[in-house]
Amino acid sequence: MNLTGNMLIGRQAVTGDRDAIRAVHPATGNLLEPAYPGGSEAQVAQACALAWAAFDAYRETAPETRAGFLEAIAEEIEALGDALIERAMAETGLPQPRIQGERGRTCQQLRTFARTLRAGEWLDVRIDPALPERQPQARPDLRQRRIPLGPVAVFGASNFPLAFSVAGGDTASALAAGCPVVVKAHSAHPGTSEWVGRAVVRAATRCRMPEGVFSLLFGAGREVGLALVIDPRIKAVGFTGSRSGGLALCRAAQARPEPIPVYAEMSSINPVFLFSNALQARLEVLAEGYVASLTQGAGQFCTNPGLLIAREGEALDAFLAAAAGHLRQCPAQTMLTPGIFQAFAVGVDALAQHPQVRLLAAGLPGDGPNRCQARLFVTDAESFLADPALHGEIFGAAGLVVRCRDEGQFRQLAERLEGQLTATLHLEDGDLDSARALLPTLELKAGRVLVNGWPTGVEVCDAMVHGGPFPATSDTRATSVGTAAIHRFLRPVCYQGFPDGLLPAALRQANPLGLKRLIDGEREA
Amino acid sequence: MNLTGNMLIGRQAVTGDRDAIRAVHPATGNLLEPAYPGGSEAQVAQACALAWAAFDAYRETAPETRAGFLEAIAEEIEALGDALIERAMAETGLPQPRIQGERGRTCQQLRTFARTLRAGEWLDVRIDPALPERQPQARPDLRQRRIPLGPVAVFGASNFPLAFSVAGGDTASALAAGCPVVVKAHSAHPGTSEWVGRAVVRAATRCRMPEGVFSLLFGAGREVGLALVIDPRIKAVGFTGSRSGGLALCRAAQARPEPIPVYAEMSSINPVFLFSNALQARLEVLAEGYVASLTQGAGQFCTNPGLLIAREGEALDAFLAAAAGHLRQCPAQTMLTPGIFQAFAVGVDALAQHPQVRLLAAGLPGDGPNRCQARLFVTDAESFLADPALHGEIFGAAGLVVRCRDEGQFRQLAERLEGQLTATLHLEDGDLDSARALLPTLELKAGRVLVNGWPTGVEVCDAMVHGGPFPATSDTRATSVGTAAIHRFLRPVCYQGFPDGLLPAALRQANPLGLKRLIDGEREA
Repeated sequence: MNLTGNMLIGRQAVTGDRDAIRAVHPATGNLLEPAYPGGSEAQVAQACALAWAAFDAYRETAPETRAGFLEAIAEEIEALGDALIERAMAETGLPQPRIQGERGRTCQQLRTFARTLRAGEWLDVRIDPALPERQPQARPDLRQRRIPLGPVAVFGASNFPLAFSVAGGDTASALAAGCPVVVKAHSAHPGTSEWVGRAVVRAATRCRMPEGVFSLLFGAGREVGLALVIDPRIKAVGFTGSRSGGLALCRAAQARPEPIPVYAEMSSINPVFLFSNALQARLEVLAEGYVASLTQGAGQFCTNPGLLIAREGEALDAFLAAAAGHLRQCPAQTMLTPGIFQAFAVGVDALAQHPQVRLLAAGLPGDGPNRCQARLFVTDAESFLADPALHGEIFGAAGLVVRCRDEGQFRQLAERLEGQLTATLHLEDGDLDSARALLPTLELKAGRVLVNGWPTGVEVCDAMVHGGPFPATSDTRATSVGTAAIHRFLRPVCYQGFPDGLLPAALRQANPLGLKRLIDGEREA
Repeated sequence: MNLTGNMLIGRQAVTGDRDAIRAVHPATGNLLEPAYPGGSEAQVAQACALAWAAFDAYRETAPETRAGFLEAIAEEIEALGDALIERAMAETGLPQPRIQGERGRTCQQLRTFARTLRAGEWLDVRIDPALPERQPQARPDLRQRRIPLGPVAVFGASNFPLAFSVAGGDTASALAAGCPVVVKAHSAHPGTSEWVGRAVVRAATRCRMPEGVFSLLFGAGREVGLALVIDPRIKAVGFTGSRSGGLALCRAAQARPEPIPVYAEMSSINPVFLFSNALQARLEVLAEGYVASLTQGAGQFCTNPGLLIAREGEALDAFLAAAAGHLRQCPAQTMLTPGIFQAFAVGVDALAQHPQVRLLAAGLPGDGPNRCQARLFVTDAESFLADPALHGEIFGAAGLVVRCRDEGQFRQLAERLEGQLTATLHLEDGDLDSARALLPTLELKAGRVLVNGWPTGVEVCDAMVHGGPFPATSDTRATSVGTAAIHRFLRPVCYQGFPDGLLPAALRQANPLGLKRLIDGEREA
C-alpha cells in the first residue's frame, strides 16, 4: 500500500479541491511525495455534515462498544508497522526510538481511555429519588448523567506526529466521550496523518461505527481550520500549537452565533527553581539533568524547561560551568520544520543581542539544514522582571538562567510569570520551608508542579494535568493529557420524572452498566 | 438595627463615591430609603485587592472549616428575622410566603454545599503511585487535586433576591470551592442585599475568615460590574440576568489580557411538548398545571414555560379553552421592577401585533403600577419556524402555543430552537415511541428534560442541572444550581514527585481528610 494524498471524509478517500501541501524532509530540505491537495469549504462542510449525522448513533453506543473501537484503532495503528515509523521519521526528522516510543504512547493512550470508559466514573451519575411525601412540596425523581458536546475539531500538533495528532490525546478523549472527530492534519506530517487516518477508518469500519465518526482534512493555510471551527455542527475544538494560532481559533469560536469551547494548549517556559541546599548537594547531577531535559528532542516540547531560577553564588557558578560543559557537547539536532527552525533562530538571536543577557554556551554547530544548535543564556532577576520580552517562549533547545540575589526573589519572579504548564522545584530537606513559601504561587501559575524531576515527559495517567492558566492554555479548567481529558467534551443533563423505560441505560434503576452512582448524596460501594 | 446604605469592603462599611441607587417599591412606585451610593473604580479595586489578599489563606482552610462558615452564613441570615422578609417584599413586590420559602431555599443551599464539602468528592483526588522499576522508564509519583480559581465576581439577580443574590447559589458554590467573593448587588434590592451582606460579614468574623473573603458593592449602571470583571484579581464570574447583560460580561472577560470564565445564565423559553395521548387523557389537569406554572410569581422565572407545542385538533382546542378559562381568572401580579414591567409590556404588544399570532386570553387587569396581566397567545408551526422573533423570551407571564399539523413537526421545531434551560414532555404510555424519537434532540437543546412535570421549581440537589446550551447559558458544561455548581470554580493541579510533608492535606498518603481516592485507577471503597 502507498500513500495517496487523499483526505478521508467519512469512509471516502477524497482528493482536496484546493492548493496542495507537501511535506519537507527537514534533515535534507527535500520535498516528499505525494502532494496533499487541501480541502475546500464545501469539503469541510461535508465532513461536518457526516459528523453531525453520525452523532446521535455514536453518542448512544455503549461504553463497551466505544472502548472496543478505541482498542481497534490502537491495533490498526500497530498493524501499520514500519511504514508509519519511516514516514514519521522522514516528515519530522525525529529519530526512530522517539517515534517508536511515541507510537507506543499513542496506543497506550487509546487503551487507557478504553479502560476509563469501562470504569464509568466519567458519566458522573447522580440520582436523587422522588420524595412524594416531602413538605411543603414533593420532590420529583432527578437523575444526572454526562453527554458528549457534539462533533469536535482536532488540530494535529507539529511536535507529536502521533501522540498529539490524528489519533492522539484530543481525538482519543473526544471519541471516548462520544463525540465524532474531524481532524485538520498538521501540514508538516501529512503522510503520517494519512497512515493513521486510514487506520482509524479501518477500525471504525471493523467496529461498525457510523460513517462520519471520523474525518481527516488537509489544508495549506488557516482557511480549512477556520472553516472547521465556525461550522455550526462543530461543538468543541482541541488544539496544540502556537499562541497566535490558538488565539485565532479562540476568537473565531467566540464570534460564532453559538460560541463553543476551545481547548488550546499554547505556550509555556516551564520555570525550574533550584533551591540552595539542592544546588549545593547535587549540582553535577542537576547540571546534567537540566541539559538533558533542555536539549531532548531539540527542545521541541511544550514542557521544555526554558527558564531556570537560582540564587547567585559559587554553587550557581559551578552549576553553570557544568551545564555549559554538557551543553557544548550536545550535537545539533534536526528541527521539525524549516519554519520552526527559523523561529528558533530569530528567538536566540534576539536573546543574544539583548543588552542584559549573556550567552553562556552553545552546543555543537549543525552540518545541514534546520539544525538546532542548543543555547544557554544568563541574566539577572532585575533585568528579567523589567522586560516581559524575556518571558516569551523560544520553541527549541534554548535555556535562560535567571540569577537572583536571594531566594526571597523566587516568589517575586514567580508572581510575574504568565500561566505555565509546569513549574519545577529542586530541593533538599533544608529547602522545604522555602519551597513551602513558594508553592501557593506556583499552584496558581501552573497545571503541574514537580519536585526533583524535569518537566519533559508527560505521563498518561489519571493524575496527570497537562494544562494550566492562560496563556499556557485557553482553559485552565482542563487537561489535554490523562484520563481527565475526557471531561472537556462532556456536559451534564438532568432527567426529571422519567419513566424507567425512557431513561438512558446509565440512569436506569437496574443499573445495567454497573456504575457506582451517587444516590441521595451517598456513593454506591 | 437599620439599613445604612453602605457597601461592605471586607469588614468595613463604606459609603460609595458615586451616584446613588434607591430601591423602588414596585407595587406603589414609591422610592425606599436609604440611598445606596455606588462604588468608584478605586473602591472596586480595593474590594478585589482584599479578596486577592484573602485568597491564599482562605483556599487552604480545611473543608470542615469552610463548611462551618457556610452554615454560619445560613444561621446569620435566619437571625435577620422579619426585617429581611419585609425589606425583600418591599423591594420586589413578591408575597411573604414566596420570600420566606426563598430564604429557606437559600439557607438549605448553603447547608447543602457544607455537606458537599465534607463528602470530599469535589476534590477529585487521583493518585498514580511511583513505579520505580517500570521499563523503559520509571513512573514518578503523580497526584491530582482540584484547587479554586481565585476571587469570583457574583452578580445578584433581580428575580431571586435571596437564592440567586448576595448569598445565593453562585456565592455559596464559590465560597465552598475556596474562592473569595465580591458581589455586585442588583440595583432592584439594595436593602435586601445589605441585610444579607451584613449576615455574611458577621459569619466571616465569627468563623475567623480572612478579611476580604467577601465584599458587597453597589452601582447604578454597568460601570461597577465591568470594572469588577476586568480586574486582574478576579478569576471567574457568576451572573444571572438578561442576554445583553450576560453577553457584555462575556465580551469583557474575553478581552482581558488573561481571559476568565463567565457563567452567565441568560435566557430560555422552556418548550413544553404535549403528546396526544397525554392531551386526551388529562387535558383539564394539564391546562390547570400549565397556567399555574406560567403565571406563578408573575412568570418571572428563568424556567417559565414560555412555549407550548401540541398537535392541532379537538383535544388541543379543548385544552386551550380550559387554559384560557384559567388564565382569565388570574389576578394581575406586581412585577419586580418598572423596567421589567415595561419590557414585558413591549414584548406582549409585539406578539399581539404579529400578523400570525392571535391573543387567546388575558388575565385580570391590574389596579396599580407595574402589574403583570397574564397573556396567552397562539400561532402555528409554519409561522413559528419562519420567524425567529417568535423564539425570544418575554420575561413574565406570557405563553405562546404552537399548533402543529402532526407530532412529526415536534422534532423540526425542537431542532430550530436555541439552547434552553429545560424542555418538558407530557406523555402517556402510548406516547413513549414519539417521545423516544424526540428525546435525542431535546438532550442537545436543554440542560434538564422533564416528563409530566412543569419546569418552574428547581430543586437544589446533586442531580440538578440548571444550565444548558447557549444562549440559555454562556457555558453549557456547567450548572448554577445543585452541588455540581462547585466545579465551575475549580481547576486541577498535578503534584509530581512531592515529599509527603510538602503535599496538601488532601493528597497526603495517610489521607487525613478521609477521602475516597482514585488510586492507580481503582476507587477506594
